[in-house]
Amino acid sequence: MFTVYGMSDSGNCYKVRLALEQLAAPYRWIEVDSSRGETRTPEFLAMNANGKVPTLQLEDGTFLPESGAILYYLAEGSRLLPREREQRARVLQWMFFEQYSHEPYIAVARAIVRYQPPDSPRRAELPRLLERGTQALAVMERHLEHERFFVEQRYSIADIALYAYTHCAAEGGFDLSAYPAVQAWLERVKSHPRHVPLP
Amino acid sequence: MFTVYGMSDSGNCYKVRLALEQLAAPYRWIEVDSSRGETRTPEFLAMNANGKVPTLQLEDGTFLPESGAILYYLAEGSRLLPREREQRARVLQWMFFEQYSHEPYIAVARAIVRYQPPDSPRRAELPRLLERGTQALAVMERHLEHERFFVEQRYSIADIALYAYTHCAAEGGFDLSAYPAVQAWLERVKSHPRHVPLP
Repeated sequence: MFTVYGMSDSGNCYKVRLALEQLAAPYRWIEVDSSRGETRTPEFLAMNANGKVPTLQLEDGTFLPESGAILYYLAEGSRLLPREREQRARVLQWMFFEQYSHEPYIAVARAIVRYQPPDSPRRAELPRLLERGTQALAVMERHLEHERFFVEQRYSIADIALYAYTHCAAEGGFDLSAYPAVQAWLERVKSHPRHVPLP
Repeated sequence: MFTVYGMSDSGNCYKVRLALEQLAAPYRWIEVDSSRGETRTPEFLAMNANGKVPTLQLEDGTFLPESGAILYYLAEGSRLLPREREQRARVLQWMFFEQYSHEPYIAVARAIVRYQPPDSPRRAELPRLLERGTQALAVMERHLEHERFFVEQRYSIADIALYAYTHCAAEGGFDLSAYPAVQAWLERVKSHPRHVPLP
């Protein structure tokens, strides 16, 4: 059985939960609160020297960090990952896009709005985060105008990766009403069998 | 034959060049200068809506962006990517680490030092970039104290991805002398057959 070390409110951790649920894979979840320093203890750093959740404990007892790597590991050989080399690369394209051009703006804006006090100096970052996150949403909108899902018209881990922080982007101050194709895609993801919401 | 749309001085583009050279794959290189707006033209955005290099044109004429996805595509079935599912996931683990916890600090510090004028307000970002980039180097050092390469003691695209901006980190103000295991690994990468330097 897999063990997930994760923080329930984190979108990166939610990706792993959603994939495990949709694969009907048994797992246990160990809550780790990074805001209370629980990812910086010697015990946690021995599992993941980079001190981040999610970290997955595999069935052989070893640990695999990085949500993107975990999703790929779980999905290989399943219907959540295409079998063709080019289509697998396109799944990774959107997962790297998410981690580099989407999450650092859309997830970070949400984290600041949710967890920082109203007078936090970090709120000064919000205009830039909103500008860059809006660019990412525009890239998604353009793609989804002609596609049901991100790759090959089929639900995959690319959709899971992008759904996690897009569906709650309003919590960071993003207005999704300007992105009708993104909104329609969010509904398709949400209605996929065995969907579970962010806790 | 592949066509790379890339900027020669970019580490992300260098990763693709290095992989193609080491695979002895024929390719042509089309120089695209993002600092002159060449990634924001309608023609370029039709190839990659996210407006970034590198973008690889595949042999079927379609375009694949994101250096991580390109590396994975090129390496599948070659000695640059392990065949075992778990080891492939570990390669991706380090590639996602690079794009999320390394490149945004180490590459961005280098870009500011190299391309921004001495009075640029962006230089105010440097202390934070140095602090976070130093954390990434410490994670690498800890891993490489016991490993010849990042995954399974074998040179792979994880090494290519991490080499690109680590070997020139001094240009962004990082002092690599504190990381002897990283330095020894850089030498191993550099002496690998068919290595080519960053132009």
